Amino acid sequence: MIVGIIGLGLIGGSMALDLKRRGFAATVLGVENDPVHAAAAGKMELVDEVVPMEECLDRSDIVVLAVPVGTAVKMLPGILDRFQTGGGSKIVLDTCSTKGRICRQVRYHPLRSRYVATHPMAGTEYSGPWAAMTGLFDGRACIFADSEESDPQALAAVERLYDVLNMRPIYMNADNHDVHTAYVSHISHVTSFALALTVLDKERDEKHIFDLASGGFSSTVRLAKSNADMWVPILTQNRDNVLQVIDTYIEKMNQFRKAIAEGDEARIRTLIDQANRIKKILR
Amino acid sequence: MIVGIIGLGLIGGSMALDLKRRGFAATVLGVENDPVHAAAAGKMELVDEVVPMEECLDRSDIVVLAVPVGTAVKMLPGILDRFQTGGGSKIVLDTCSTKGRICRQVRYHPLRSRYVATHPMAGTEYSGPWAAMTGLFDGRACIFADSEESDPQALAAVERLYDVLNMRPIYMNADNHDVHTAYVSHISHVTSFALALTVLDKERDEKHIFDLASGGFSSTVRLAKSNADMWVPILTQNRDNVLQVIDTYIEKMNQFRKAIAEGDEARIRTLIDQANRIKKILR
Repeated sequence: MIVGIIGLGLIGGSMALDLKRRGFAATVLGVENDPVHAAAAGKMELVDEVVPMEECLDRSDIVVLAVPVGTAVKMLPGILDRFQTGGGSKIVLDTCSTKGRICRQVRYHPLRSRYVATHPMAGTEYSGPWAAMTGLFDGRACIFADSEESDPQALAAVERLYDVLNMRPIYMNADNHDVHTAYVSHISHVTSFALALTVLDKERDEKHIFDLASGGFSSTVRLAKSNADMWVPILTQNRDNVLQVIDTYIEKMNQFRKAIAEGDEARIRTLIDQANRIKKILR
Repeated sequence: MIVGIIGLGLIGGSMALDLKRRGFAATVLGVENDPVHAAAAGKMELVDEVVPMEECLDRSDIVVLAVPVGTAVKMLPGILDRFQTGGGSKIVLDTCSTKGRICRQVRYHPLRSRYVATHPMAGTEYSGPWAAMTGLFDGRACIFADSEESDPQALAAVERLYDVLNMRPIYMNADNHDVHTAYVSHISHVTSFALALTVLDKERDEKHIFDLASGGFSSTVRLAKSNADMWVPILTQNRDNVLQVIDTYIEKMNQFRKAIAEGDEARIRTLIDQANRIKKILR
């Protein structure tokens, strides 16, 4: 099996490593637009060959689209077009963090069924080929969105791919996916960005930030290191869901603000006790 | 040297373990009001003996007050009173997360100089004697607040104690401490509590939270497991500083909200790029 990976960043690079190492792919081809990233990926031997897009599409059995979601939405129709001229037995999957828009983009494409929409829920706050690592996906959840739109054989092949990566499959419709990830994943990033901005704004003495950043602050602000290329399209594509969650979040902050301003200890205690319920869910 | 520790929770229990193990204390006495915690601390052998408060104060050379700051503020004057009848060579230190109020509380006490105000910046989101662990303090910062108010010999003894715990000393006035910790530490807890409340509110399906909580959400919401006994007094005692930071924070969230609502990609990118600067400070 030849796997082609478009985008050799954290996700694409990590997939390349494990799919090759674990024998799923005999050959891994990579496509990378950024010349520095491409050179690094070559040097780090993330893939067997870095090739031009067309060559990758023509030689690969499965194509993994691992680019920011704005780019993926633009590229996917062209990839399916190229599959059409090639006979239509190839498979393309994407790994993007929003699913509604990309699924709508190709809903009526004649080769829609050769596309499998997935979201492997794994990552770190780092990006680029140098962030790629083996084992990144082990034990994490992978969402298959609108899987009934994919050809059963194509779906089965992609399920095998994620099985090799040790991911737990979860099936969901694309719009539900975007609602749930807004609640659980996207809002965490926004709150983390806002926290970093607040601290950078208020605390002009960087030495103090470093000294006082006990484990608590570092872990809460960790996601604020995530890059704009990935997150601008996620936040704009999932706009309505993200705005709803931000509104609820600001409401909760205001409840805290009011209770603290009024010195209402009982109310602060109730809010914290309620927040503590998250313990039961996350182990 | 006999060290008495009042409050055998995460901080007190962890100190007990390392001060004994590393030879700073020949004997560690513990005081614990909660009968279940006291029994557990005994069973886990966190201290050599669990004793009543008065016995602890009379037998110990150094007393560590490791209780929530509301309780500490109430107990400290009585401890210094008891030192007075005992001759005044003993030392008491506290480990609380706010320093202004407790320092004001004993400012004019005749034995003020036997008190050393400290804040070891270490911890986890867990509490109670079962959360105690060795090595908790290694390599972290410990703040000494208003250290010029302490007797130099008392200060030196407490500096040795924290040196044994491998902590880096930082000296600061008590009010500055409360400003800086509001910015860097207290706000992280409030944002984490608010995040947990938001997700619990919006996402009624607990299975989805669990499935979708990729590393990102878990680390951002980790502090929301912190308990109310500790955090209610911190947030009320550091009210004015915390409110100021919350206001800046809500302002930043509103900037994000506006940029996302308007689909202003350039503005979202600028906000994320600015937030990314936190990378340079935290490694």
